[in-house]
Parts: sequence; structure tokens; C-alpha cells
Amino acid sequence: MVGSVGNGLADLGAGAVSMNGVGKALHPAEAAAAATAAAETLPMELEPPEALVAAAAAEMEAKREEEAANGRREIVMGRNVHTSCFAVKEPDADDEETGEREATMASVLALYRRSLVERTKHHLGYPYNLDFDYGALAQLQHFSINNLGDPFIESNYGVHSRQFEVGVLDWFAHLWELEKDEYWGYITNCGTEGNLHGILVGREVFPDGILYASRESHYSVFKAARMYRMDCVKVDTLMSGEIDCADFQRKLLQNRDKPVIINVNIGTTVKGAVDDLDLVIKTLEENGFKDRFYIHCDGALFGLMIPFVKKAPQVTFKKPIGSVSVSGHKFVGCPMPCGVQITRLEHINALSSNVEYLASRDATIMGSRNGHAPIFLWYTLNRKGYRGFQKEVQKCLRNAHYLKDRLKEAGVGAMLNELSSTVVFERPKDEEFVRRWQLACEGNIAHVVVMPSVNIDKLDYFLNELVEKRATWYQDGISQPPCIARDVGVENCLCGLHK
Amino acid sequence: MVGSVGNGLADLGAGAVSMNGVGKALHPAEAAAAATAAAETLPMELEPPEALVAAAAAEMEAKREEEAANGRREIVMGRNVHTSCFAVKEPDADDEETGEREATMASVLALYRRSLVERTKHHLGYPYNLDFDYGALAQLQHFSINNLGDPFIESNYGVHSRQFEVGVLDWFAHLWELEKDEYWGYITNCGTEGNLHGILVGREVFPDGILYASRESHYSVFKAARMYRMDCVKVDTLMSGEIDCADFQRKLLQNRDKPVIINVNIGTTVKGAVDDLDLVIKTLEENGFKDRFYIHCDGALFGLMIPFVKKAPQVTFKKPIGSVSVSGHKFVGCPMPCGVQITRLEHINALSSNVEYLASRDATIMGSRNGHAPIFLWYTLNRKGYRGFQKEVQKCLRNAHYLKDRLKEAGVGAMLNELSSTVVFERPKDEEFVRRWQLACEGNIAHVVVMPSVNIDKLDYFLNELVEKRATWYQDGISQPPCIARDVGVENCLCGLHK
Repeated sequence: MVGSVGNGLADLGAGAVSMNGVGKALHPAEAAAAATAAAETLPMELEPPEALVAAAAAEMEAKREEEAANGRREIVMGRNVHTSCFAVKEPDADDEETGEREATMASVLALYRRSLVERTKHHLGYPYNLDFDYGALAQLQHFSINNLGDPFIESNYGVHSRQFEVGVLDWFAHLWELEKDEYWGYITNCGTEGNLHGILVGREVFPDGILYASRESHYSVFKAARMYRMDCVKVDTLMSGEIDCADFQRKLLQNRDKPVIINVNIGTTVKGAVDDLDLVIKTLEENGFKDRFYIHCDGALFGLMIPFVKKAPQVTFKKPIGSVSVSGHKFVGCPMPCGVQITRLEHINALSSNVEYLASRDATIMGSRNGHAPIFLWYTLNRKGYRGFQKEVQKCLRNAHYLKDRLKEAGVGAMLNELSSTVVFERPKDEEFVRRWQLACEGNIAHVVVMPSVNIDKLDYFLNELVEKRATWYQDGISQPPCIARDVGVENCLCGLHK
Repeated sequence: MVGSVGNGLADLGAGAVSMNGVGKALHPAEAAAAATAAAETLPMELEPPEALVAAAAAEMEAKREEEAANGRREIVMGRNVHTSCFAVKEPDADDEETGEREATMASVLALYRRSLVERTKHHLGYPYNLDFDYGALAQLQHFSINNLGDPFIESNYGVHSRQFEVGVLDWFAHLWELEKDEYWGYITNCGTEGNLHGILVGREVFPDGILYASRESHYSVFKAARMYRMDCVKVDTLMSGEIDCADFQRKLLQNRDKPVIINVNIGTTVKGAVDDLDLVIKTLEENGFKDRFYIHCDGALFGLMIPFVKKAPQVTFKKPIGSVSVSGHKFVGCPMPCGVQITRLEHINALSSNVEYLASRDATIMGSRNGHAPIFLWYTLNRKGYRGFQKEVQKCLRNAHYLKDRLKEAGVGAMLNELSSTVVFERPKDEEFVRRWQLACEGNIAHVVVMPSVNIDKLDYFLNELVEKRATWYQDGISQPPCIARDVGVENCLCGLHK
């Protein structure tokens, strides 16, 4: 089967492993007190029977076809995990002697590991570089490393990795051309935290500012507006996915009296489009907003690739930008999500407050902060360096072109933005295929993000399977591949009408 | 030396290891393009010379004494990390052949590891259980595990650990007595994320509600108020650190027309005080706020201990509370910060929005989420179970009493709240001693949080050193131990006046 880890493992594990739920045990305080009281256990919640699953799938498929016929499409949600989780089971009184529990857990973990290998092999849709080897850092897993507070001011908690964190931050500040004594930043938990931070800094600089963002911006930008109670204006996009600065200008002029906080995408989530930073700045300055704007650059993926793409417009603090964020688990590759946030020191002094309990300063979104992530980043930056990243970026762009060309040759509509390694193409008809290759989809389109871990062999494997499956999806001559002209332009669509 | 990891390592590493900064190299894009261009490197920024450090310390000490004489005290901030970080250095062209870089990095890591051992050994101030063994999970470090989106709805990214996450969440929902089909939750990055989430849910339920929190609440609660643009009222505390419900009532009556969102502390940061949840509810209901309040319980540390303390008022969803958060890296112990957030499902439906790109739902604060943390928690919960935690809680409370008694015997003013393992005592005079033992301090008090990793031997080691050092601090007969009556009550103070 090609389903998710969860379901695969539940199939394997339910009978043999029997990690039963606590069920209707007594409240833990009572249960624990009565050490001999045997907790009443319920049978594990098994996968629903095959027949039911098939019926549900057929129903969903029928619904999708009906919606497609109506020209709209409901969001296809993932499976409900509650039916396939590994319950925590209270150890039996004699578990320590028998060692049975340890053995059971080891077997769950071994199966899980096997499924991770399989899932990693078939991953194409998210911009995560899955190719890394941090074996040298395994020795640190025994420590509770926490960089709580400000990266530049030690807290009283001594088990930290600030000396690695600041090394990494210096590297990024240098990449984006901000002097050591003029920047502030920290290593975040993910791209969302970077956006939340950048937009918050913007709001503190301009408390009555309006947040502008193109409609193809990451959902965290709109979440920030809601969280922070900011007025938010969505700006249209061009076919490429870039912000439409003509529309931006129109909307600016409707709000002449309010300062601007704008999120600029350095690679949108779905199409990998890079907003034209220079044009955004020009639009702001020419429409009377000089010195009344704050620009946050969401460089979740391309923030680290674009410095190495020839002719790309550069992200640099020599331009009037306020902050840049980038993800660490994407192009760099890291076992856990993380990100880097760099902003101007002058902005942060207004935002922060000293926390005596920490002997440090609170200017981050989170409090306790993962101290392992900076060491992973430091390790990779040191090993690869600028030159190593440049090579990888070039390889990714080459491979992305290869994928786009091969798709078109096979009659599959596809688009690749010039500065991007995100190949957008017609959404595969079969949701099972989408799940197997872990493709991110939106409406009629899907995408593959070509990361350093995606080589030609993997792409060929994917292409062959797609072509083969596609022949069966459309063999009846009645179903047709979807038209994607509205998403990627007539010139990139190869549907019945446009090919 | 007993300083921080950073400084210790810089001493060791600066000369031998020579991880020089990139310095004023060309911009990376150019530098990388010109593969042969040797980057101009600056000498590593060394530790300031010993003499300067000593002079600065003396100056700081003089300032503190002056402030103490004036009856006020400035916050003592930690050291600036920028002077001691490990810079990332661009690899030399021949690094791959010589293997020199790998060797250098390995030596930095080995030294760092040694310092972590030392720092872990001397840790007392933060409520982190440093005693864990996740060796069995080292095999998973090679995978980029990410639970992006909702825990209960699989995203299209297949390399996740939702089946572990939901198992852990079920365990906590059961602990706090909320049925499986009535709760929602997720594993967060830290206690702060839990508070940010709980308070956000409260605000969405009561958009014009006022946030109340005792002044001894964690700083993240006040950060949330600022981020979310909520009116916030600070409530006074009793000597124990608990919320003063008489003051709460007074403040409620000044804002009769506005709903209430209140943060209830299940263990305050500094004194480990547990707010009286039942009295808070009674105060709300008796003053006309029935069905017009949302209670978030910040159980960062004690949320997991209190179910196992006899006679403690219970945190349970059978009472009208909205959410509970607890940290995973504290009592449970985990290499990286994490936490658990449980709330009522009915509240979350209003907050969330579906994200097609993920095929999941967005109801969390963060987007990408660490998939390793749930496995760590699952592993420990399975191994220890309710009974294991109960034993550890009892041990911690016993050891905390031991520490408090021994401190008082030695003439050191100290306090221990009944339901707590946080021992508050007179702040040690020497900041170096504070740093060595990583004590969290506030004003004239410091604290030790007795965690499962803190045994009697470690406490004796600390006590002996404190008594010995203290004799030297106050031997001149002029300096006196600080009075802490204002912080912990006359009955717990042993200063010249109160003993």
C-alpha cells in the first residue's frame, strides 16, 4: 500500500504490537495510587474495514467529479489520524522485569523507521531538502539544549548553543548585507515564526499601518493580520504568481493616510514566484509613502537560493527593507523545522523587554528555543559554504528545467518561473497518487519543488509513473485532463482546448 | 573557570580551532562565483582580556552594591554572546581532500559536548528534567519529520509523526478529563506557544474580553496581550505568589460589562505558586460573569505534577476551563523545548481555517511543527506511565523539603509552597556563583526547582558550596544577607532583622 505512515503502521502494528489505549481507566491520580488496580483497557481502535474505506473513497471521488463538472472543487482533506494513532499504554507492574514493553516499543519504532525511509523516498511536493547527514551531532541528543531569551545575551540557563546560533546569524546577516552592529535576529522554529516576527516588528514601527500582501502569500501572513488585529489588504497577482504592482498602487491610493507594512514573497508557496522587490519599493516611493513603509521579505525557501541565482534581483538590507526570514529545514535541510530571522537592530529595541528571570531580553515570539537547530545549521553552513550552496542551487534549477521539459513532452501542462525550482503542473487525477508522491495541490494544479535531494533518477521514476498512470486515468476518452490555463497561462496549458 | 559554555569554549577553541569569521569578504554571490578568490579573513574576535573582564565585574559589583544601598536593584543581564561565537568559515577549496575542516569541526563539537556535561551537572535554576535517555530514538535523527498543520488531519507531507502525537494528546486529554471527541490540541514548541494559543482562543471566543493575569504570571502572558492588542489587567498576588482573588474581584467590578479571559497559573515561574482555580471560578460566578469567562491554565511545569499531588486542587475540564498548556521539556524531559496544548474542540472550529496547500487545517500558532518532539514524549510516557510520574513527583517534593530545611538550618532564608518543588531563597551575593549553578533570580530572591534529575547528592554539593562561599561573602561583618521578608514573608526570612 502507498498510504500514509500512520495507516501503514497501524496495519502492521495493531495486532502484533497491541499498544492499547488507557480506555476508561480511573483518573490517573487514583489509578496510580492503587498500584495494583488493573486499568480496564479497551480494544485498540483499528482501521475501519477495507470495504468501508473503499466505499468512502468512491463517494469522495463521485463528489469530486460532480464538483469538477460544476467548475469548482472542494478542498480534499487528509485522513483523520485519530483512527490510527499509537496510544500510550500504562506499563504493567511487571514490565520492568519482563522487558516486554521495551521490546514492543522497539518494534513500533523499527516499523516506523522503515515507513519513514519509504515516505522520504517518495517525497516531492514540499521544499524540504531531505538529504543530510548529522551523524556527528548524534552525541548531543542527550542534552536539553535551550536558547531561551535573546541570542546575543546569555540567559542563566547554561545548557545552550548561543555561540553556534550567533555564528549562523552572522553568516546570514553577511549574506543579506547588514553589518554586525546593525542587525538583530534569531533562529526560529519555522517560516511562520519568521513571518509572525517580521510583521510584528512592522506593526510596532507603524502601529496604525495597513498590512499588504499578495493573495499568493503564505497563509501565515493572513494569520498574523488576524492575530495582531491589523487591517489587511490582499493584492492581486500576475499569472506567474508575483505581486501585481499596478493593483498594489491602486490599493495604496485608497489608503493614502496610513503607513504600509508589506510582505514581499521571495518565492511563493505554490508557484515559487519572486515578487519584484525593486518595483514594490518604487511603487511605494512614487506614491507618497517614502519613509512610511516597512517591508518584510518572506524568503522561506528562495531567501537562501536567490543570492546564488545569476541576474536575480537581490534581497539586501542596502535596500529599505525591515526584515528577512528564511526556513532552515528547506534548502539547508534539518531534521526539525527551523528558520532564520534577521532584522535591523534599531527596530528591535522598541519591541523588546528585559526579563529578569532569564537575565536576558524578550524580543522573540517563542520563549524557550530549540538549541539543537542552530548546531545543525552551523554544521551544514560550515561544511558547504557559499560555494557549496551555489552548486546545489544550480543543480536544482537544472533539474527543475529537466522536469518541466519532460512533462511538456509527455503532454502534461506545466510551468516553471525563471528564478524558481518549483515546477507547477496539472493536478494528477488520483488522490492516492498525490499522497504517494506527497504533492502539494491547489485547485487544478500540483507542484514539485526540486530540492538538492531530488535528483534526475527520482524525477524519472516519478515521470514514468505519472505517464503510466495518466494513460489509465484518461483512457476512457470521457475524462479529460484539467485545464490549467487560468492558473499558469494559455501558453503553459496542454488541455484539450489549449494544446 | 566556571563561566558559560560559550566563554569556556572560546577560550579553548579560539587559538587551536581558529574558526575565523567571513569578515569583509565579497558578497557571497560574487565570492562564490570567483571560486579562487580567497576571502579576506579577520582574526577571530577573542574574549576580552582577563584584566578587562575583572575590571568590568568590579564595576558591576560596585554598581549593584550602590543599588542595594538605595534599596533597588538593576537587572543583571547575561553576557554578550557576540564576542564569543563560533563563526562560520567558508571552506577552503581543498578542504574536501585534506579533511582538515571535518577534523576542526569534530574538535569544536567534542569540546562543546564536554562543556554541556559540565553545565548539565551544575544546573539547578530552571525546571528542566535533564535526566533522560533517548538512545533508542537516535535512529530517527536522519529524517526531516514535520507535523505541519493539524495533528488530527494528515497533510500531504508524509514524513510526519502524527500517530505518536495524537497518542500523546489522548493521554493528556485523559489526564485532564476531556473526552476524545470533545478535545483538540497539539504539541507546541514551548510553554509560550501554549499560552499564546490559549489566550488567542480566549480572545476569539470573547473578542472584546479583557485579559486578567496575576503579576507573577509568565512574561509570555503579557506579551500575548501586546501582540493581540487586548486590554490587560494585572492582578495582585499573595505572599505565596498565588493570585489575590480579593484584588481580582475589585478589578472585575471595575469592568462589569466586559467578558473575562483569565490566565490561571498552575505553578508560577518564580515561586511555583498554584493559583486557586476553584476560588477564581467562584469569584467569576459570584460577580456576574457566569458564562462570560474563558480560563486558560498555564501549567508549564506543575500541570503535569499536580495530578499526582495528594490534596491538590485538580485541573480538570469538568470545571469550566477553556484550555491547559504544559511544557514537555520540563517535568517529562526532552532534548528540545516542546509543550502540550489541550483545549475544547468547540472553541477551535471558530479559530481554524482550512489550507488546501497542506490538505490540512490551520489552527496552530506555528506552521511547520517539530515531528521529533512527539516521539520523545510518547517514548517517555510509555516507559514511565502514570505510576512512574507519581513516584518522581513524590521524590521531587521530598527533595525540595530537604533542601528548604537544610537552607534554613544553615541560616539562609527560604520558602517552599505546599504544592511545589520550587525552593525560593536569598539571592547569592556573587553573580559568578549564580551563573555557575544557573539560578534564576528576581530582585533579592533566587530559586532552585527540584526536578527528577536533582537528587540529594547534587543538593548536598550545592548546599556545601553555598554555605562555604556565603561565609566568605559576609565575613567582613559589614555586608549583610539581603532581607527577603517582602518576597517570602517575615516567617521565612532570616536576615539580621528577622532571624
